[in-house]
Amino acid sequence: MFSIIKKQQLSRARTGVLKTPHGDIQTPVFMPVGTKGTVKTMTPKDLKEIGTEIILGNTYHLLLRPGEKLIKKMGGIHKWINWNKPILTDSGGFQIFSLKDMTKITDEGAEFKSYLDGSKHFITPEKAIKIQTDIGADIIMALDECTHGETTKSYAKEAMERTHAWAERCVKEHKRLAKKRKTPQALFPIIQGVTYDDLRTESAKFISSLDTPGVAIGGLSVGESKEKMYHTLEIVIPHTNEEKPRYLMGVGTPEDILEAVDRGVDMFDCVLPTRLGRHGSFWNSTGRHAVKNKKFIHDESPPDTKCDCYTCKNFSLSYIRHLIQENEILGMHLLTIHNLRFLINLTEKIRKNINKGSFSKFKKDFFKNYHV
Amino acid sequence: MFSIIKKQQLSRARTGVLKTPHGDIQTPVFMPVGTKGTVKTMTPKDLKEIGTEIILGNTYHLLLRPGEKLIKKMGGIHKWINWNKPILTDSGGFQIFSLKDMTKITDEGAEFKSYLDGSKHFITPEKAIKIQTDIGADIIMALDECTHGETTKSYAKEAMERTHAWAERCVKEHKRLAKKRKTPQALFPIIQGVTYDDLRTESAKFISSLDTPGVAIGGLSVGESKEKMYHTLEIVIPHTNEEKPRYLMGVGTPEDILEAVDRGVDMFDCVLPTRLGRHGSFWNSTGRHAVKNKKFIHDESPPDTKCDCYTCKNFSLSYIRHLIQENEILGMHLLTIHNLRFLINLTEKIRKNINKGSFSKFKKDFFKNYHV
Repeated sequence: MFSIIKKQQLSRARTGVLKTPHGDIQTPVFMPVGTKGTVKTMTPKDLKEIGTEIILGNTYHLLLRPGEKLIKKMGGIHKWINWNKPILTDSGGFQIFSLKDMTKITDEGAEFKSYLDGSKHFITPEKAIKIQTDIGADIIMALDECTHGETTKSYAKEAMERTHAWAERCVKEHKRLAKKRKTPQALFPIIQGVTYDDLRTESAKFISSLDTPGVAIGGLSVGESKEKMYHTLEIVIPHTNEEKPRYLMGVGTPEDILEAVDRGVDMFDCVLPTRLGRHGSFWNSTGRHAVKNKKFIHDESPPDTKCDCYTCKNFSLSYIRHLIQENEILGMHLLTIHNLRFLINLTEKIRKNINKGSFSKFKKDFFKNYHV
Repeated sequence: MFSIIKKQQLSRARTGVLKTPHGDIQTPVFMPVGTKGTVKTMTPKDLKEIGTEIILGNTYHLLLRPGEKLIKKMGGIHKWINWNKPILTDSGGFQIFSLKDMTKITDEGAEFKSYLDGSKHFITPEKAIKIQTDIGADIIMALDECTHGETTKSYAKEAMERTHAWAERCVKEHKRLAKKRKTPQALFPIIQGVTYDDLRTESAKFISSLDTPGVAIGGLSVGESKEKMYHTLEIVIPHTNEEKPRYLMGVGTPEDILEAVDRGVDMFDCVLPTRLGRHGSFWNSTGRHAVKNKKFIHDESPPDTKCDCYTCKNFSLSYIRHLIQENEILGMHLLTIHNLRFLINLTEKIRKNINKGSFSKFKKDFFKNYHV
């Protein structure tokens, strides 16, 4: 499923190709998040124009509305949302456990309340797989217990052990259901352990030993410092199989992508580019900016003079500032296009530089202008 | 500026071409409304894809934010919003007078309060022209006093007479300012008179006698019945010059367009297709529908099986229903695309049928399936 194309010397950065039933994905890759079956403000056409290779869907949201049964009945997620390229769904675990006071966890599974109407739902590892099978993405995730960056060690250990037991059950259920499916799905289990080096090491070894075509690193960028996150990647990655793609869940600022690629990560997703766009912020080569800043009132330049996106080719900061000020959807859409393109463009440049052997220089040059 | 191509027999329907500095407009035409310098949810690319020939901007909104001076400084409205085809701006009168309790009217002009911050502004016919000159649209409107459909005759007469005096002042100011402009602008004055036949007749004669390349019919679709609106058009149109394009302001349901074209109207604008789209409604050949209706839950068909728009070519009612239910911008955008295309497509068919001499049959056939 995954082939490494090129490894960077003096770094764990590498390029690769991940094959799925809906096409190949070039890695390192940034995956836009389409929580409820839509990457907010973007049509499939818009997504293709900016070079999107794969998008995410959130199982938690989709199972509550419209429900996985409807998606299955309508021919699966690809057909229903009109996206014929790869899709990944998470297991719902992250959302369930981030609403802690609405959730009761046992070894069997988790009882949680709907954010829509407070109705009670019970999810088990087997159910998480069944739901994702019905939704029909190319890559699906094992149910895990994601805890906060400040969790005590004893609870971190308990949650990790439960995550491991659940991962085994997910692998088993996935194999059972796979026999009935025409289109194969790849299952990725998730490494946990908060920021405790020994737990992370144990989890990396255990999760990597499972018979799956990829692994994910969860529980990062959830409250810990950036230094701890980068350190944890350095602890985890050497204990994962080199042959499997590594997906760092929920991470995706420009700086985090560069640092994580350097440490061996292949796949990223994050709501930041779309969320920042809707709230009037954008990235360019000098950092992150708020378009409402008064200095942009008469600014005829685009968000990023070096960017090739529709927004930067056609619109001024002056106009986009006005749109955001007026709460106009077009303003949110234009900044979303740019922010997504900025990250996808960054991964394209990262791949090019890894393939040329110049990743370290590229990373260094990037941070010369870019201020976090 | 305006040439008639073909007149329909036994009807006042006609096709024509309206020449502007930013291109020709085929009439009858439907003009999408871009209140604050954006047709809500639509990029210029989206607008061109559905065959948009001209868009509107609302002077009232633009003068309050960002202000006409900013637009002028940024090179004019076309450049600023990145729309290189024709634009029409209204005079602001409609918005000012629809906020009656925030407005004081004298023969000199109108004092009104900003909807944004309550700040006081004073607009005169001369100022309305100056502001629209700075904004820089291809077609601009004279300041008028638009009153409600239930206005007493004595007030309707007073408002009409003020509208006439203001129209004369607008024509004068426009001629004065035109000498300084490189790109010409066409000024349209506005016929008023509520639904009083004698006032409408008087107003039609007076407004048509002014030296302008087109006329508008205002004060309709503001509370009166459809029958009264159609009747008023029958009263007004025969007293206007046949050589001038006739613009019926703020009108634009499918049925109103057909009835008004039949009575001799050439130009339409309306917020309905965009507003309905954002609120989950759409038109098709059978009438208007709410996408949240339960019957669409598993409906794999598009809003309109006969439509050629991006929405209808790619998405099911089931998916669009979900998006609208979740308040997703993509749902609003997809229905906006379709509703605008539906009206533009209708005007394209109207033109084709007028040119073939089959407009009356086309109109009759349309209403066989379509239920208002």
